[in-house]
Amino acid sequence: MAVLGIDLGGTKLASAVFSEQGALLSKEIVALGVRQGAEVGALITAQLKKHLADRKDLQSIGVSVPGICRSKTGTVWAPNIAGWDNYPLQQELQREAGTIPVIMDSDRACYILGERWQGNARGCKDAIFLAIGTGIGAGIIVNGTILRGAHDIAGAVGWMALDRPYLDVYTSCGCLEYHASGEGIAKVARKMLQEKPEYQGLLSHKASETMTAHDVFKAYEQKDTLATAVMQQCVAFWGMAVANLVSIFNPEKILFGGGVFGPGVQFLEAIRQEACQWAQPISMAQVSLEKSQLEGDAGLYGAGYLALQHQYPV
Amino acid sequence: MAVLGIDLGGTKLASAVFSEQGALLSKEIVALGVRQGAEVGALITAQLKKHLADRKDLQSIGVSVPGICRSKTGTVWAPNIAGWDNYPLQQELQREAGTIPVIMDSDRACYILGERWQGNARGCKDAIFLAIGTGIGAGIIVNGTILRGAHDIAGAVGWMALDRPYLDVYTSCGCLEYHASGEGIAKVARKMLQEKPEYQGLLSHKASETMTAHDVFKAYEQKDTLATAVMQQCVAFWGMAVANLVSIFNPEKILFGGGVFGPGVQFLEAIRQEACQWAQPISMAQVSLEKSQLEGDAGLYGAGYLALQHQYPV
Repeated sequence: MAVLGIDLGGTKLASAVFSEQGALLSKEIVALGVRQGAEVGALITAQLKKHLADRKDLQSIGVSVPGICRSKTGTVWAPNIAGWDNYPLQQELQREAGTIPVIMDSDRACYILGERWQGNARGCKDAIFLAIGTGIGAGIIVNGTILRGAHDIAGAVGWMALDRPYLDVYTSCGCLEYHASGEGIAKVARKMLQEKPEYQGLLSHKASETMTAHDVFKAYEQKDTLATAVMQQCVAFWGMAVANLVSIFNPEKILFGGGVFGPGVQFLEAIRQEACQWAQPISMAQVSLEKSQLEGDAGLYGAGYLALQHQYPV
Repeated sequence: MAVLGIDLGGTKLASAVFSEQGALLSKEIVALGVRQGAEVGALITAQLKKHLADRKDLQSIGVSVPGICRSKTGTVWAPNIAGWDNYPLQQELQREAGTIPVIMDSDRACYILGERWQGNARGCKDAIFLAIGTGIGAGIIVNGTILRGAHDIAGAVGWMALDRPYLDVYTSCGCLEYHASGEGIAKVARKMLQEKPEYQGLLSHKASETMTAHDVFKAYEQKDTLATAVMQQCVAFWGMAVANLVSIFNPEKILFGGGVFGPGVQFLEAIRQEACQWAQPISMAQVSLEKSQLEGDAGLYGAGYLALQHQYPV
């Protein structure tokens, strides 16, 4: 007996067969390439079909989606896949799977589910996965179950308001995401570069448009002054965001993942210190800040756990 | 068949018998007076005893407590009752109630439970009661159940970090509570008064120490410039806090209650406009901001619903 986890990303499709105990039995990755719209749906269906032919003992199928899963309709909104505004993925996959149940959820929900099953949130009933990559989102478990909200879009923490006054640049992405996502780190560095023509450091030769968070992290390692200023401000925003999640949820753990954590892990202690200033002090003393254990596989494990939970609800 | 709700406040003890359908059959209020510590416990026990003698059909008893209920130990921390750092209230009341179950929760949890049962959150599975009085806290329902957190102190939204840089005055109460609680409104007004010696408005004759939020609201009604500035800043903080709750929880409703709402209700539209700038836009379009329907009785109804839920879990 086994379950299938499918993790759709913005550029690739991963799938894996797990034992009920959480052992990864096989894993496969396919690039999305130039596929869009229904072609992406067809790719997932083809992978599903192959797995169903390979293994006759699949009990259920979990799918992690990079966007919003509308639980009432089974449709998906995925900003990075052209044509997926209201894509009927559930229906398409269920048609292929027949009587084997297909369960979908958002990537951020799957991240924390994966960590809860086989990662750093094992045994936690109240835990948060803070996913900081190009954007920022959070997968949140409350008393053992995923926080979905009234319309399945809870956890949009990139929109957290953390600094007055309101700036127009927040309109498309939110205040936290503007200042402290991967894209945000690059944006802030570009802006500082423009504002400090006297700066002659490691980033001064960078063409403004091509600067990335990776460049900023590399310059930070070499104690570059501009990169240091960018990261200090970023840590302040991360700390305030963590403080708010701690005061609101009183969680056991907050796990940090996504492309930025990664290199952002070196700031965990600084983030804790910043958060300690702001947060409800008793809750702050009770929370553990850690890095994701499963990293790039968190969504895949989470998809597996979605499938397993359907068989054995907790 | 009926349930008993007991609502302990900082200055008074209310108790009421409810039918299973939510009709308030009888209600009684006793002032705490100078009682503290075990005397408060004895008063609650005496009231409970009287109700048990009066009605033989009480199925269960719910208790709303102005502080933290530690669900694992049944002890209570209540900052406004001297000696209640770790008070064994559950044990004391259960001894009196015998085989009739006693269920306790925090006042903020009871506020939203009460509104869900007989107020403005009827039918909601995801809703928040923002209680703004002397302090600020939130009762939060996620998928139909109370958000308690790992150690029963979730919902401490008065600690929300909303404006940089960190100020030392936040240490004892949190950033949001400093700026936008009843106590905070008075503090901000006092500070502005000191900083504007040229101001000669309605609040200029107020002795700084005795100014209250009530004074500020009264002066605001008469278009006083200082009161207007205080309330505009306060609305900005309320709006950011609402935005964060909306982005994080994607709730159906946020209800406003506590002593400040009350007069704060006139700002609901301004709060919505401020929140619209900051929040995840789809979630913001889906949420309804309303005033508490049950007002001062929300905790009492919530205590009744605690008792009822124990009989008929939802």
